[in-house]
Amino acid sequence: VTNARYGALADADQLEAALREIGAERYHIHHPFHRLLHTGQLAKGQVQAWALNRYYYQSRIPMKDAALLSRCEDRALRREWLVRLLDHDGVGDQEGGIVRWLRLCQGLGLDPAYVQSEEGILPATKFAVDAYVRFVRERTLLEAVASSLTELFAPKIHEERIPGLLKGYSFVSEEMVAYFRRRLDQAPRDAGFALAYVREHADTSEKRHAVARALIFKCDVLWAQLDALHHAYVLGGGIPIGAFRPQDSGAGRVAA
Amino acid sequence: VTNARYGALADADQLEAALREIGAERYHIHHPFHRLLHTGQLAKGQVQAWALNRYYYQSRIPMKDAALLSRCEDRALRREWLVRLLDHDGVGDQEGGIVRWLRLCQGLGLDPAYVQSEEGILPATKFAVDAYVRFVRERTLLEAVASSLTELFAPKIHEERIPGLLKGYSFVSEEMVAYFRRRLDQAPRDAGFALAYVREHADTSEKRHAVARALIFKCDVLWAQLDALHHAYVLGGGIPIGAFRPQDSGAGRVAA
Repeated sequence: VTNARYGALADADQLEAALREIGAERYHIHHPFHRLLHTGQLAKGQVQAWALNRYYYQSRIPMKDAALLSRCEDRALRREWLVRLLDHDGVGDQEGGIVRWLRLCQGLGLDPAYVQSEEGILPATKFAVDAYVRFVRERTLLEAVASSLTELFAPKIHEERIPGLLKGYSFVSEEMVAYFRRRLDQAPRDAGFALAYVREHADTSEKRHAVARALIFKCDVLWAQLDALHHAYVLGGGIPIGAFRPQDSGAGRVAA
Repeated sequence: VTNARYGALADADQLEAALREIGAERYHIHHPFHRLLHTGQLAKGQVQAWALNRYYYQSRIPMKDAALLSRCEDRALRREWLVRLLDHDGVGDQEGGIVRWLRLCQGLGLDPAYVQSEEGILPATKFAVDAYVRFVRERTLLEAVASSLTELFAPKIHEERIPGLLKGYSFVSEEMVAYFRRRLDQAPRDAGFALAYVREHADTSEKRHAVARALIFKCDVLWAQLDALHHAYVLGGGIPIGAFRPQDSGAGRVAA
């Protein structure tokens, strides 16, 4: 049903057009929480909650990329995809994106040990992120690759986020947005590869619809994470027991 | 039952002693096929069959390592393990071990395209190797790490194999044994890390027995591959339909 509106997807161009339409509608750049985040309308505790929960997503990305590699018999594809692991985990002297994300958290006043303990993460964040890892682990390789295609739309969100955070919040420094600056180069390279891959390998209408569905699924994963943040930390829907509480954790858990 | 003889495994030292005993008894260096291979007693077609089938094992190693990474929440462990993917697949300018293995196959007169097609691989090789990948994918992380511990015994087999192949076969050149020379450095580094890991993390008798069982399983995987080769290509047990046949594939499938 959801897919009917994207039509027959008779060829790669129609598929790409559908993917761009899905992103234009469903990518989480349009989520109200991001609007607030990018325009300086959140309190520091709310920005902390965002960074903390988003850490859980970051922490699982190398696992989902490794899940893809583990099912991939094509060495050329593995060699391309391996770069994602290097980007996130780093190797040798390269620290990787997760360390940059932890630095953002620390800059926001969160204790990195607390962040990495995953204690304060919203359960809904875990449910959404874990579903993504499982999707990549269990679906076809084509769908797994396709689920990465939200990166097609990432540069725009980072272009908006970097000045938005720097202008909107006195407690955000240039060093803290290093993660996003790096993603400006990394995401288009990865997305370009993944897009070319699905254009080539989704060679039936059925497969092209599966690709579109995978992107929709992934947009849902990202969107659900912001819904959970928005609900708990902005709209007053209640912070689940055990999850990060900006007010009372300020003393005990937030670094000086 | 199998484990009873290794005793209580009351601490890490007892575990390590048991692992070394398992290797001393069960590592495939002791397999008759390897004795023949390393002492110049095989015909060229039999060496080809070994290299061809062993390619399938090589081709799956990055997948099993990625399977481990995909389930590993510990970034420090992922960063260590990631090096194995680099060693086998390579990245950027580094070609990786699989390319070196294909060069060995080519040097032996096999068409690399035929090797990579996996057409000629013995079904028993696939059953054994696929079981290894699944083991790493499905068992505990500790058992997955432990299953790599055959590398503790790899330097000895390579030290035996390199001069054995060079002396035993006029058609083996120095360039063709490059894979094994590289493994002389890589395997002890990896095995040292994995041994330290299981010594630290197998902190109950039950876990230490699981580690021992994992190593036994892995020895069985390696051993079964040689049994299949020995059966089909040495003892005349019959080559399964579709599998590599040294005699009739010499013209059509083997490179000039």
